[in-house]
Amino acid sequence: MPRVSEQYRTNRRGEIVVAAARLFAANGFHATSMADIIGASGLSAGAVYRYFRSKEELIGAVAEQALSAADETFALLLADGATPSPTDVLTAVLEAVSERIADHPVLGVDVTRIGVQVWAEALRSPELAARADEVYRRLRGYFSESARRWQAAGHLGADAVPEQVGAAMLGLVQGFVLQRLLVAGTDTEGYLAGVRALLGPAGDRPADPQVGT
Amino acid sequence: MPRVSEQYRTNRRGEIVVAAARLFAANGFHATSMADIIGASGLSAGAVYRYFRSKEELIGAVAEQALSAADETFALLLADGATPSPTDVLTAVLEAVSERIADHPVLGVDVTRIGVQVWAEALRSPELAARADEVYRRLRGYFSESARRWQAAGHLGADAVPEQVGAAMLGLVQGFVLQRLLVAGTDTEGYLAGVRALLGPAGDRPADPQVGT
Repeated sequence: MPRVSEQYRTNRRGEIVVAAARLFAANGFHATSMADIIGASGLSAGAVYRYFRSKEELIGAVAEQALSAADETFALLLADGATPSPTDVLTAVLEAVSERIADHPVLGVDVTRIGVQVWAEALRSPELAARADEVYRRLRGYFSESARRWQAAGHLGADAVPEQVGAAMLGLVQGFVLQRLLVAGTDTEGYLAGVRALLGPAGDRPADPQVGT
Repeated sequence: MPRVSEQYRTNRRGEIVVAAARLFAANGFHATSMADIIGASGLSAGAVYRYFRSKEELIGAVAEQALSAADETFALLLADGATPSPTDVLTAVLEAVSERIADHPVLGVDVTRIGVQVWAEALRSPELAARADEVYRRLRGYFSESARRWQAAGHLGADAVPEQVGAAMLGLVQGFVLQRLLVAGTDTEGYLAGVRALLGPAGDRPADPQVGT
């Protein structure tokens, strides 16, 4: 019965990822060992290593779970050739971060805490650095696509480079992730209000498009 | 001769901070011990502990060195009641990050690498969390003051909250710090061009002030 076997494998794999995410969020990536993860998973070492050969592979699986929220958010924003404004995009993404990544429905932890630790580890681990580069290129690609459409609709100067605008938009989200964890009193609504005010009329759909300004 | 003694103390203290910064940047905050710092400083343990009782105190000293570049940048920007635009402020700060913090003239290391590691450690160390909170409040205060003046000059909607705009501006800088380290090909000029395009005419001194828009 290959279907049952496949389902069994998917469930086991998911349980290991949840156990690892909890340990990473509580104790940090550095201080968590494969032995800790094996212990928390309730499975044998052989069973765990059958799915994941290293902590780096496990971090990759945790990142994929968190990124699926970002993938879905952008899939909705960009569906059917839509042209969301930078303010629309940043609102949806910042809300996804606080509702679906900082309080992950499947992993049950604040995945942004794991993300910040991976940033630090990536400075000394080429494998994690390659994964982080891949993740941020993917996210920047989504933001850039939204900027490209915003420009094509005449709302962004013709000399703007969508990839550069996408990098700045991603930067606003990364800054939010960090301030939410490290600066007391940071809340989603307040940060979003600041972003909206900073972008001003250029960041949102104007009454009359400011073409070429 | 108390003046010589004072100078001697300042020099010794500075040497210890430089030795610590090099180790933190190369090996990480977590993997660096007080014993490593004592060894690298060439001083006795007693001498080092006379100046710094812990790694946390040393990180505080490194942070102060890096922040002095930010303090000076804002002192120039905000001198004599000046009203720099958000684009002016972000340009000056991003340039200070890449020229004076990522390539620190006294410490001789990329202090942003240490910063990212402190972000991660702060999630589990209340002492580092308190220091990070203090640092980011100070920086956010500068950005907020610039937004307050920009608003008073009529360039920002009356309903905008300067502290919230300041948080978003700080977020753009934190995102730059991170992308510069983790996303290949990120450069200061390109990121700045993206910020300018994203902020659009609202981010810079307009030909005719858009009061109340």
